[in-house]
This record gives sequence, C-alpha cells and structure tokens, in this order.
Amino acid sequence: MNYFSSNFKLGILGGGQLGKMLLYETRKWDIHTKVMDASPEAPCKIGCNEFVQGDLMDFDAVYQLGKQVDLLTIEIENVNLDALEKLEEEGLKVYPPTKALRIIQNKAKQKLFYVDQGIPTAKFQRFAYKSEIEDSVSNGGLSLPFVWKAAQFGYDGQGVKIVRKLQDLEGLPPGECIAEEMVYFKNELAVVVARSASGEIKTYPVVEMEFHPEANQVEYVICPARIDTKVAQKAREIALKVSEKIQQVGLLAVEMFQTQEDGILVNEVAPRPHNSGHYSIEASYTNQFEQHLRAILGFPLGKTDSKLPGIMVNLVGAEGHTGDVIYENMETILGKQGVTPHIYGKKQTRPFRKMGHVTIVNENVERAREIAQQVKEKIRVVSK
Amino acid sequence: MNYFSSNFKLGILGGGQLGKMLLYETRKWDIHTKVMDASPEAPCKIGCNEFVQGDLMDFDAVYQLGKQVDLLTIEIENVNLDALEKLEEEGLKVYPPTKALRIIQNKAKQKLFYVDQGIPTAKFQRFAYKSEIEDSVSNGGLSLPFVWKAAQFGYDGQGVKIVRKLQDLEGLPPGECIAEEMVYFKNELAVVVARSASGEIKTYPVVEMEFHPEANQVEYVICPARIDTKVAQKAREIALKVSEKIQQVGLLAVEMFQTQEDGILVNEVAPRPHNSGHYSIEASYTNQFEQHLRAILGFPLGKTDSKLPGIMVNLVGAEGHTGDVIYENMETILGKQGVTPHIYGKKQTRPFRKMGHVTIVNENVERAREIAQQVKEKIRVVSK
Repeated sequence: MNYFSSNFKLGILGGGQLGKMLLYETRKWDIHTKVMDASPEAPCKIGCNEFVQGDLMDFDAVYQLGKQVDLLTIEIENVNLDALEKLEEEGLKVYPPTKALRIIQNKAKQKLFYVDQGIPTAKFQRFAYKSEIEDSVSNGGLSLPFVWKAAQFGYDGQGVKIVRKLQDLEGLPPGECIAEEMVYFKNELAVVVARSASGEIKTYPVVEMEFHPEANQVEYVICPARIDTKVAQKAREIALKVSEKIQQVGLLAVEMFQTQEDGILVNEVAPRPHNSGHYSIEASYTNQFEQHLRAILGFPLGKTDSKLPGIMVNLVGAEGHTGDVIYENMETILGKQGVTPHIYGKKQTRPFRKMGHVTIVNENVERAREIAQQVKEKIRVVSK
Repeated sequence: MNYFSSNFKLGILGGGQLGKMLLYETRKWDIHTKVMDASPEAPCKIGCNEFVQGDLMDFDAVYQLGKQVDLLTIEIENVNLDALEKLEEEGLKVYPPTKALRIIQNKAKQKLFYVDQGIPTAKFQRFAYKSEIEDSVSNGGLSLPFVWKAAQFGYDGQGVKIVRKLQDLEGLPPGECIAEEMVYFKNELAVVVARSASGEIKTYPVVEMEFHPEANQVEYVICPARIDTKVAQKAREIALKVSEKIQQVGLLAVEMFQTQEDGILVNEVAPRPHNSGHYSIEASYTNQFEQHLRAILGFPLGKTDSKLPGIMVNLVGAEGHTGDVIYENMETILGKQGVTPHIYGKKQTRPFRKMGHVTIVNENVERAREIAQQVKEKIRVVSK
C-alpha cells in the first residue's frame, strides 16, 4: 500500500492533545485522517482532513467511523471495544488490536495478565465492589495502607487513591476496583516500546518521572533516567516483554517502579503515544508520534536513540483557577536555551488540567534539569 | 500581547509548503491563523484556523485579509506590496516590512541595494527590456557568457538562464532583467538570519548547497558546510549585515557564492523560511519556522545551533512524469537511520516540481551525506 498522497484514510478515535501531535506527523506525510471526538472544540479539529463529532463509547458511532476508513487507531483507550471487535472481524485493521485494548482498559484484567505472563508487578487483590474492601480489611485479608484503583476509566490521576484508613474510601465510586500493595519505590520509570504490524520491536530509552506529590501527575520526565545501566537494561527488557506478550501494534508506554532493591515492577501501560514520550519530539531521532505511525502502517521503525538529553515539564492548570486560560511568563521561558513550549489549545483551564508541556534539551542532563525547574517555577497557567 | 490561546489572529499570505510547515508551529503554540492562497487545494488548507481563496497579487484581496488580522506575514514574496503599504500606514504590523519586500521583490533593486550598502555581490548590468541586452553585447558593453535574470517573479529556477551565445536569449520573457557576471564559485552557501521585531538578531550556521546541474535546483543542503571556519564566519557576518541593512523582521535566507579566492558574494535573498533551512526541523535547537514566529511576534530568538549535523534532499518530480503523484521506495528510505521524509501534499507532479524533502541527521556529516545519496538514488517521485 502506498500511503503517501493516496486515497488511504486513517481513522483516529479521540481528538485531544495526543491526537493533535499525531496530526503533525500525518500532515508531514500527507496521510488523510478522519478524527472522531465527543467535543466540537477538540484540539484535533484543526489539522485533520475530516472531523466528526461522536461519542467514543458509543457502538454505532465507532462502528460507523470504522466503516469509512482503511485503518483505525486511537489516541485514548476508553473507546467502545465491541465496535472495534466487529470491525476487526469484518476485516478492518485496528491498531492497537482489540485484544490488547481489552486487557489494558480494565486494570484488574491488566494485573491478572501480568501475573499470567510472569511479568513482575506489585501484589494486588481484585474486588467487584468497593464495599468488599471494607470486609476484607475487617477480616484481615487486606492490610492498610494500600492503593485503591478503579478498574476502568481512570485518567490524569483520577481513579487512583492511597488508602491509609478506611475513611479514605469515602466518596470513591462503588464499582470494580483493585487494592494494590504500596510500593516504596526509589524511582518511577517508563519505557515507550514500539511494535510494528510486521512484528518489528524497539524500545526508547528509560525515562525517569518526577511526580507532583498531591496531584499524582508527572511534573518532570527526564530522558535518559539517571539510573544504573543494568537497571535501565532490565526495565527495557521487561517493557519489551509486555509489548510482545500483549501482541501490541503501535506504541506501548510501560510505567514501572524501581524498588529499593533495584527490582522492576510494572505499574500500568498505555497503548498509544504517551506523556512520558513527549520529550521525543525535540530530543529523539524519531519522535513517538511518527513512530506510532510507522508501527501501525507497517513501515520500518525509526531510530529510538536521543539526539540530546531532554526533559519535559507538564503545564497544568494552577490551583484556584478555573475559566478562560492565559499563560503567564511564556516570553520569559522562551528566552532560555533549548526551551520549546507546546500549548494544547484547550480554552478552559482548571486545577491540574493538562494544558500543555515544555521540552528542554541540553547536552548536559543536569543543566537541562535546572532550566526545567526555572521553567516550572516561572510559568503559570491561570484563568483571566 | 498574550498570543497563546488568545483572540490574536495571524494572517499568512501564501498557502504552499512553507506555510504548511509554519502551521505546525502555530498549532504547537495554539496561535490562530488565517491563510490566503489562490489555490483551493493549497497545502495550508488543512492546519490553519481559517482559509480564504484569493489572488496574492490582487490589491483588494490582500488589503481585505489584512483588515481581518492583527499581524500579517508571508510565505512567498510575490504579493501585492501596495496593499501591504496601505495596511502598514493604517497601523497593521506587516512582517517582513513592505520596504524590505520592495527591495527583494525586484532583483535589479536588490542588486543596487547591495552596491549602495557595500555588500559584496557579483557585477551586473540592469536592462529595462531584454532587447537592450543584444545592443549592449554588440557594442561591447556586455561580454558573453553572463547570467540573465528576470527582475521579477522567478521561482524554482525559473527566471534564471546562463547566456553563452545570443541565441540563448530566445524565448526568454521581454521585460526588466539583469545580466550578471558568471561566478566560477567553489561553493554555494546560505545563511538563514533571524531578526526580531525588537531588533534581536541571530544567524544559523552556514549551509552548503549542492545543485542539480540542469534544473538549477538545490539537491542537497548540508549543515554545517564543510568549509574553513574563517570563510564561514565571513559568510555569517555578511548575512547579518544584509538583514540589518534591509531592516528585516522575520527570517532572511541569504544565498552566497564562495569564490575561488575564498571571497563571499551575495547572490540573492528570501525574506522568509527557506529551503536551505528545512534541515533545521530535525537538526536545530530551534527550527526555522518556530524562529520566524518568534521573530515576528517579538519573542526572544531561539538557539540556532544544531543538535546534530543534518542534510536535506529535495524531492522533485522525476523527468518524464506529469500527473497524479506517487512516491516510490518510501519504505526503503524509512528503513535507513535518521531519515525523515516530508511530503508537501501536492497532488500533481511534474518534472522538477518541489514535492517534498527528506532530512538525514547523523553524528557524522560524511556518513549523513552517504545516506542522503542513497535516499536520493532510491526515491522516485513519479506519476501513476
């Protein structure tokens, strides 16, 4: 198939910032795109060839989109999987494959998959209802503290809570969930793996994630991670194994814990371009969005090495600000060396909403980290 | 002015491949754009916020666009300057300024400007009509061979011809032109200069251009140029002087000859992102399109150094092929290290038409040059 400047149509489910950045690459290769998103104001509305408003969880909407394209991919994993399955049965290429999405969409299934495949992960228990947790704590089957996670539809720190006492469970949604052992980790790491339709597979370097203590959101992503090369090698091998075992086609971002004993535990995965790979736009030979395209179109994968060390700073809405967004001190950060802001184009800010990110590249990773901190301290995403 | 996610509107005259690549950057910063181009199929139609079909040489069309935006820039210099001048008088920011465009749009004026400003350039004579050239040769005022150049509206090697005998003048357009002394150069070089609305100025490294012997089009652009550092320094200084003297705001690409004696002669300039700067997307800390935005918006200029050596190969239509385009062997070149193709999205190919380009980055410039040659030899832009 000759994808370039041809009649080929790529369908994309979801029109947020990940889709927006993917569209830079489809434009670069002149690949015709048709995007569906629930919001008529989605960032992807500009930059795609065709935009259709539709509910990603609705069978008919997803099925109809699938019938109008030659290949279907996603930029968010919360989509109607029955529709994808039917499309696959009818011969459409759906990447990531529905089977992989079924495992990933439900965190309980995802954890069971790790256990089945011998992939190291933190101990956990699975509950059909939140109410079962209290019983389990009472009868000694589950010890405090633990990490509560909703089985489905978590995003941006939603759907995860550290439970130190039973009262912490109040206000959480009632449905299927897991209780995971607390991991007192040394570092949080991530590896983006690309696996192509033809089975070729490559990992990006290990990145190190520094989290905001309250919002459970990544503040800095540092590439390369400042860790021992043996630990990095182990992390890449485990990430590779997850991608292979799950039979992914496209990108898979594997988030991991480095334990105090330098063990690696898989935390969770995302079957798409990911926040932990944004640094690649400026720092890598092949950015993650181009790599995702290469993978799903069955092209040879690009080089995953870095040109330079890179650090990403998330731009999230400041606390106490909700409404029409403005970005303060952009000019100041543009005056620093090797700094590239990305603004996602969401018109409304709210506390901790992901509104953009900034990449810092520098020959020296420690110097990059200093500049990243200056950027973080200076820039403010506020309402008018 | 807070440009990001605001009501600010940037007008862009021209909707070709340069505009298309500029739009990746306006999307990255969520800057609202309104593009005008004569073609309803212009590559910029996707990726801008608003598109209007209009003749760039038409006073009313350009004036009307200007009244609907807060700042006006160009991606091609052949636009109606009277309209721009009136808009400027009425208070609109027009970058590049009309004065600079008046000098650049007419090659005879451009040459006179170099002479007035003490900028080295090849000797030339100016003619109001082509017929005057024959008289001048007959009476010994002009010696063969020389380079004939139309004063206006040359593009992609059009409007330039080497005249070795008088018959070579046959078929050339009759209007204003110059006859320039042949320069037997050692190298053709270019320097992209960024000058911001606030007067800040920076040069990119010197690039070396290898031309196709027949089509008078660049085949390879190599950054950094493989020349003596003193010559490179001289080229950067001269380019800087041109940008300052012409009072440019935005980018200025300065094309130069390196003579056999290592002198530098300015050949011509383009007041916008330029083919000789495309390598910067993958190779530079700040790509030329982002830099153009920084300059016209009055932001601090970004670092112009390279992350790695980079080489650009132009993808032009193969001889003997006119019609619906296909790109042969894209998959093969994607299998090589550090190779990024850009497809402009023109649906029709014709011999030597610029259809795209490919960037090769590598730590070693000689190795990059080898891969570039493989890319050039392998890829073919043909009709179906």
